[in-house]
Amino acid sequence: MRILVTNDDGIDSPGILALVGAMRTIGDVVVVAPDRQQSAVGHALTVASPLRATPFHRDGTFFGYAINGTPADCVKLGISTLLDVQPDLVVSGINHGSNTSVNAIYSGTVSAATEGTLMGVPSMAVSLASFDHAAPMDLAADVALEVARRLPTMQLPQGTLLNVNVPACSREAFRGIKLTRQGNSVWKDSYERRRDPQGREYYWLSGEFVTLERLDDADDLAVADGYAAITPIHYELTNFPVLDRLKTMF
Amino acid sequence: MRILVTNDDGIDSPGILALVGAMRTIGDVVVVAPDRQQSAVGHALTVASPLRATPFHRDGTFFGYAINGTPADCVKLGISTLLDVQPDLVVSGINHGSNTSVNAIYSGTVSAATEGTLMGVPSMAVSLASFDHAAPMDLAADVALEVARRLPTMQLPQGTLLNVNVPACSREAFRGIKLTRQGNSVWKDSYERRRDPQGREYYWLSGEFVTLERLDDADDLAVADGYAAITPIHYELTNFPVLDRLKTMF
Repeated sequence: MRILVTNDDGIDSPGILALVGAMRTIGDVVVVAPDRQQSAVGHALTVASPLRATPFHRDGTFFGYAINGTPADCVKLGISTLLDVQPDLVVSGINHGSNTSVNAIYSGTVSAATEGTLMGVPSMAVSLASFDHAAPMDLAADVALEVARRLPTMQLPQGTLLNVNVPACSREAFRGIKLTRQGNSVWKDSYERRRDPQGREYYWLSGEFVTLERLDDADDLAVADGYAAITPIHYELTNFPVLDRLKTMF
Repeated sequence: MRILVTNDDGIDSPGILALVGAMRTIGDVVVVAPDRQQSAVGHALTVASPLRATPFHRDGTFFGYAINGTPADCVKLGISTLLDVQPDLVVSGINHGSNTSVNAIYSGTVSAATEGTLMGVPSMAVSLASFDHAAPMDLAADVALEVARRLPTMQLPQGTLLNVNVPACSREAFRGIKLTRQGNSVWKDSYERRRDPQGREYYWLSGEFVTLERLDDADDLAVADGYAAITPIHYELTNFPVLDRLKTMF
């Protein structure tokens, strides 16, 4: 099995190293990842400037390319151009911070896996529910391995990927894998207004994550309960009930 | 009616000027838009650096703020912080280039309207199916006006927005408004490999837009047929049929 690994924390992050370690046990790994951290980058593509691909060797553990672009760029450029053959799997992560609920739409980690499935390759995103860069990655890597092993048998349709979120808990507290739906939580955002040393105003984003509905099988609630949540997501964005209603108005 | 207008082509683009002109006939307009073009920026947020809001007057036609950030930043910062009261409407556009089908997931224009609806404000994105910056904007502005007028009566649920795409055709060829679903077309991407004057390789993204399925009422096909397509979209990404099937496997 040939596996393309990417992430949005950059090619030198702890998460990608843990993920490569796990994926090497089931296939040949090539890393194509951003050359620096790309947070909350969404499904951005680089269209107005050229991309460069710099060969990268890390600690003798993997070979890959560092790209001056976004996670979605990495997957597009990797599959279309850098790799000799189409990979059998795209795995993105392990992200620091969960990508449950509405976070999926801001996530570079998820967008990279989305790009993989749009290009016809079975794909998954893996995130750990902790922003602590010293958080142990071994449980998330084990979950990623188990899911990746089974992904080729799942026959996901093109355009559907797995969004995997792992709790930051001990192995004893871990309650196993649960198939979930995207939860309904959003950010209630605020900005801190500050002044720079020249007296000019600037704004820093902060915010609070608020659960709007406690849906059965919601991914965010499952992770809070100690489960690894697997949500199959796709980009059929049409709200069909609203469409049917609006058709009667026009 | 108080209307927040934004876009992803930048606060000095032709599209925002045309949109403001239309929206002023039905309400008070405040513009909060990126200080420069933000193409294919997806639903990116600026979290790792501060934002600045520079007051902006344009040709005596509008007042607003130029933000050193993405379209989604503009709506978040505008609604949460810059505006005194919550707007009644967020309108994003008029974008150069259609945002039908899979393009919605790469689109800064759509992401700005998404941010509006996530914050509880009825929202719409408007795009013109032409990349020509000299293309006439008057038909798209008229469609935006008609839809915006009716949007407050549509009772869209929080999280659902209207994605409006207008053909680049004459008024004679225009066939009216059609309620549509997101089409199933994707980009078949390729990168041109070039060498810079120092002999180093770089890559430019190019690609071809390919229709995978000719769905009834698809937005991209409607626009190609001369209709303005209105697609109600939301961010319920779960693929429920796949979820049900996977539950039997785990």
